[in-house]
Amino acid sequence: MARTQGSHSHVTGPRIRQAALRLFARHGYAAVSMRQIASEVGLQAGALYNYTPDKQALLLSLMTGHLEDLLARSARAEGTGPAEARLEAFVRFHIAYHLDRPDEVFIAYMELRNLEPDHFAQVEALRRRYEDRLEAILAAGRDEGVFDVPDTKIATLAVIAMLTGVTTWYRPAGRLSADAVAGLYWDMVRKTVAA
Amino acid sequence: MARTQGSHSHVTGPRIRQAALRLFARHGYAAVSMRQIASEVGLQAGALYNYTPDKQALLLSLMTGHLEDLLARSARAEGTGPAEARLEAFVRFHIAYHLDRPDEVFIAYMELRNLEPDHFAQVEALRRRYEDRLEAILAAGRDEGVFDVPDTKIATLAVIAMLTGVTTWYRPAGRLSADAVAGLYWDMVRKTVAA
Repeated sequence: MARTQGSHSHVTGPRIRQAALRLFARHGYAAVSMRQIASEVGLQAGALYNYTPDKQALLLSLMTGHLEDLLARSARAEGTGPAEARLEAFVRFHIAYHLDRPDEVFIAYMELRNLEPDHFAQVEALRRRYEDRLEAILAAGRDEGVFDVPDTKIATLAVIAMLTGVTTWYRPAGRLSADAVAGLYWDMVRKTVAA
Repeated sequence: MARTQGSHSHVTGPRIRQAALRLFARHGYAAVSMRQIASEVGLQAGALYNYTPDKQALLLSLMTGHLEDLLARSARAEGTGPAEARLEAFVRFHIAYHLDRPDEVFIAYMELRNLEPDHFAQVEALRRRYEDRLEAILAAGRDEGVFDVPDTKIATLAVIAMLTGVTTWYRPAGRLSADAVAGLYWDMVRKTVAA
């Protein structure tokens, strides 16, 4: 049994996570049962517990998975150039990444209140690490003399909120492509921090 | 009976709305029952229906009430000066208003998915009217030659997201007062739209 379970878990695990993500985003964490998640992927409710100890573990895994992926990819996108080039890469990466994952973004914000305290602390630590990356770029640009940012922490939070807001209104069939939107946002961020 | 009910409804109605707001923000609309709301204000579940036809009507009323109040107060705050003065007033008003109402802000974003389609359309129309106010200021500043805003619609959405983001992290006991935060945000918005 263990072998059979193992040989399918690399397929079933991601399918469970996808189903949980969709259902949490659609109905809210509190309103979704493990039975519903199991039914969505064609498992008996009992079998679901072979993959995850409970619904809380599933939520935590979705949130930390999202943030760890965000951290790894943003590091690659950012590169090692001067601060302004790194900031532009950060802005364009952040918009593209979040537009591709509206359910993850929605859950990451909305379901924070449903995390148990130590899980909340884990998620907040990851989010803080991502914010720290942007704050380091702003501080570097200030040191280079190309940015004027009186409070790098507040500017970090302002820029991230501005960029993430795109997910609440962007539609692929709308008047602007994702690239055009990213260009407009980069122009605004550039001016916001300009010396 | 009608007279008695009428004479208390100006007190009980707001108490029901406050209880619903608190419970929706804490647990999510889907997870809260009419019975819980009634119990929170010391009513029998049946008596609650004297004040509101159902939970959906309560949610709609919370959202439209929030946005109508926002529209009325922002109009007064904005005044009729030149575009830059109106923009500063808009920024400072928006931050102060939203910091005073974290539960309303949270629900206004999070529970959109739980509105029935025609209710969603009503809420979206009000939100659009608020966005239109800011867009009109940006367009006026462009006409006056003091703002450089290539896309007033996108700049509107970007500025509102940036400002509303304050509610996700601001704590009254933190290192900055609400006024100091508003000053930093006004400085960033001013630069974002500057000619």
